[in-house]
Amino acid sequence: MTETLNRQVHLVRRPQGAPVPDDFRIVDHPLPVPGEGELLLRNLYLSLDPYMRGRMNDSRDSYAPPYALDAPPGGGTVARVVRSLADGFAEGDLVVTPDGGWQTFAISDGAGLRRLPHDMAQPSQALGVLGMTGFTAWWGLTAIGRPQAGETLVVSAAGGAVGSVAGQVGRLLGCRVVGIAGGAGKCRQVVEEFGFDDCLDYRAPDLAGRLRTAAPDGVDIYFENVGGAIREAVWPLLNNDARVPVCGLVSGYNGVTEGAGSIHALLMSLIVKRIRLQGFLNADHLDSFPDFERQMRGWLDAGQLRAHETIVDGLDRAPTAFAGLFEGHNTGKLVVRLPD
Amino acid sequence: MTETLNRQVHLVRRPQGAPVPDDFRIVDHPLPVPGEGELLLRNLYLSLDPYMRGRMNDSRDSYAPPYALDAPPGGGTVARVVRSLADGFAEGDLVVTPDGGWQTFAISDGAGLRRLPHDMAQPSQALGVLGMTGFTAWWGLTAIGRPQAGETLVVSAAGGAVGSVAGQVGRLLGCRVVGIAGGAGKCRQVVEEFGFDDCLDYRAPDLAGRLRTAAPDGVDIYFENVGGAIREAVWPLLNNDARVPVCGLVSGYNGVTEGAGSIHALLMSLIVKRIRLQGFLNADHLDSFPDFERQMRGWLDAGQLRAHETIVDGLDRAPTAFAGLFEGHNTGKLVVRLPD
Repeated sequence: MTETLNRQVHLVRRPQGAPVPDDFRIVDHPLPVPGEGELLLRNLYLSLDPYMRGRMNDSRDSYAPPYALDAPPGGGTVARVVRSLADGFAEGDLVVTPDGGWQTFAISDGAGLRRLPHDMAQPSQALGVLGMTGFTAWWGLTAIGRPQAGETLVVSAAGGAVGSVAGQVGRLLGCRVVGIAGGAGKCRQVVEEFGFDDCLDYRAPDLAGRLRTAAPDGVDIYFENVGGAIREAVWPLLNNDARVPVCGLVSGYNGVTEGAGSIHALLMSLIVKRIRLQGFLNADHLDSFPDFERQMRGWLDAGQLRAHETIVDGLDRAPTAFAGLFEGHNTGKLVVRLPD
Repeated sequence: MTETLNRQVHLVRRPQGAPVPDDFRIVDHPLPVPGEGELLLRNLYLSLDPYMRGRMNDSRDSYAPPYALDAPPGGGTVARVVRSLADGFAEGDLVVTPDGGWQTFAISDGAGLRRLPHDMAQPSQALGVLGMTGFTAWWGLTAIGRPQAGETLVVSAAGGAVGSVAGQVGRLLGCRVVGIAGGAGKCRQVVEEFGFDDCLDYRAPDLAGRLRTAAPDGVDIYFENVGGAIREAVWPLLNNDARVPVCGLVSGYNGVTEGAGSIHALLMSLIVKRIRLQGFLNADHLDSFPDFERQMRGWLDAGQLRAHETIVDGLDRAPTAFAGLFEGHNTGKLVVRLPD
């Protein structure tokens, strides 16, 4: 511990539409000092996720308060305890924080920390496939999607952190899995690396027609990460009794909401096809986290699950990397690695 | 059996918007003669239901084929067997038919018939509170709505056949129940006769504001029969983890679809509030019918459930009565009584 500064990325302006680097500023503060019962944590990995864009809006109408201006947004990190004045934690412990992010050091009173094995080979996985991202995919797919062997699952944002896991879990549970992603290269990766049965590039013409070909028996589960025109293309293919876990709507997070459509027609389709359409938040279901962890670790250890990460080095690059999330730059889980 | 004619109401034109009497024609045919394995049934009560309007459209995009032109639309009836050439049925038996309606006699091969006790006091209840209407309310409310004691349930079309039962069942299961209906008189009836805690007239100003007052703890279950502006008024009051069984959208059945709104905002609300929005059809869940019947008969026999019917005499009046369904003329179950 020779550092004397805590580098932070502050949100200094609420993004209008897509986030840009000027919405953020790098600020150096003196190293914080833990009080009695507190820990000083050194962040090793910072999770960057699309939901953060929503919390950058000044909206009272969400499931969580907006991020404050002139402060680090927060978000999950993997961190090492560098000083402990709290019971139950020792220097050197490896932990996951729920909100210590966008800075090199953080103070914690231990609340909400999850301990990791000291010898964990890839600690960043605790933010991705074995963390909130994977849990989101697993819970939404299994609890709302309720996949049955032989059913057809469509996953939007299939190359993303959540989509790539949702599709793989669907395959492992016996579904035919069709991804939708942006670009031929990413689609190839979704099929070759993540093992989806097919993946369609939404930027190419006639997504609806190609979906019909890729899902000849219709769609039983649509894992929704995107909304907009992609949802509209999937909708007519939904089978009776289809389930639609609504995990995210990234097409609209920057204020672009395509596909006005008619709410009446949407609701009517729910009756006609007996569709279950349900939103969810991972944080509501943490009592299922141990079940998730057991099943996912089993698949990982057996080599049946690929945990792809896009790793960006250095906190200063977090704003650009975050903006890239909405331009489809990354595949799998996006994390920023900080020096240990 | 002295009649020699079977009087039918034919659908002769697909309604444009609201149905009008000229969409129908009274036609007399010779009395049909049952073949081997068939029954001749005399209809005693004909069920008239909003869903029939949907089947009058020439739409391939529904859960059931459109009604044929120049034929009786069908629909449920209570009937008496007047001639039996089928095993298992005797002359005098009282049955419910799924599709024998809009005529005085019907031929049946026995498929889909449900037998009623000979001495049933009010056989028309087998179309309403103890029939498909009641089952729709009961199943949607209990299986999708999952009411918990102390929760707030809002029911649209609260004076109607389904809504009046859904609200009463909600009360019996311990919910605070707020109805929405058209007109002060109907609202009074919903409270005084059906025992709802409150009922709001959607025709009076500021439905949204009055709803906030009537549901001070927000809304946990919204039993949706209407859609449009009424759904829009309820939506902001939904609590986290709210359930919305989508039973009907009568506001749009005649082609009036108010409240365009944004599908993106609707889906976003599902995530933010973890809402479950689910359509259903009673016919998918007939294995639960015995459970339904047992519970509802228990409540009826104990005097805890009111089975209100609007009874119209004479088949010739079916077209006018049916049109009135969409103008809010009836309360409770609408049936046409035919001479025995």
